[in-house]
Amino acid sequence: MASVRIREAEEGDCGQILRLIRELAEYEKLSDQVQISEEALRADGFGENPLYRCLVADLPPASGDTQGQGIGSKIIRRVAQVALDQGCSQFRLAVLDWNQRAMALYKALGAQDLTEAEGWHAFTFDGEAMRKLAGK
Amino acid sequence: MASVRIREAEEGDCGQILRLIRELAEYEKLSDQVQISEEALRADGFGENPLYRCLVADLPPASGDTQGQGIGSKIIRRVAQVALDQGCSQFRLAVLDWNQRAMALYKALGAQDLTEAEGWHAFTFDGEAMRKLAGK
Repeated sequence: MASVRIREAEEGDCGQILRLIRELAEYEKLSDQVQISEEALRADGFGENPLYRCLVADLPPASGDTQGQGIGSKIIRRVAQVALDQGCSQFRLAVLDWNQRAMALYKALGAQDLTEAEGWHAFTFDGEAMRKLAGK
Repeated sequence: MASVRIREAEEGDCGQILRLIRELAEYEKLSDQVQISEEALRADGFGENPLYRCLVADLPPASGDTQGQGIGSKIIRRVAQVALDQGCSQFRLAVLDWNQRAMALYKALGAQDLTEAEGWHAFTFDGEAMRKLAGK
């Protein structure tokens, strides 16, 4: 198995990160919701007060298909380490109910489905709703 | 109607904030999940790189029952203003499926139920799961 290296993202990764965001959204059939630009990813993540942190997986060249190499669980393990180092009491993920493969992975790694177990629903106010609320 | 003032929380509010967190958890029948202390609330929210921001509603003394004074929608409107000022494209809330009153309020204010509409589930790795993942 090719060896995968998990590392903190750098500003120069933002183009590739955006490409992966778009690929994920396409898989989720939610491409119309991706409005972020590479410039915004750079500004939000690599300014003075970063709004997000990001890990990336480096694969050796010619490692072929990225499926089945355990990249998902390696990244989740690293996120758990980072979260514990930061003093977090838990870390959360959002997953679509038809994405059984992702759900099975998260459960196998020890996650609990809070929507199923406790009835949590995610609500969102989008840009238009926010502007209406703020009277803008 | 008594006039409610919405303002940014200060460090000295943390005791009252914790009391309200506990009251909400009791209402949600999830009291066993509240493990945070007042000291942690102070450290997390009022250090050099705050991990959260908080708004509080000040009520005039003797304003009696806090229900039905529109405090919820006033706070949500203010959160929308803050989110727009910060360049956010949306803001999200988590709500329990039996809390029909809260759901009805959020919908009336323009929110969409992403769990119902798109099938999003919230997954969590708790402390024990994280320690297992991180090998700690």
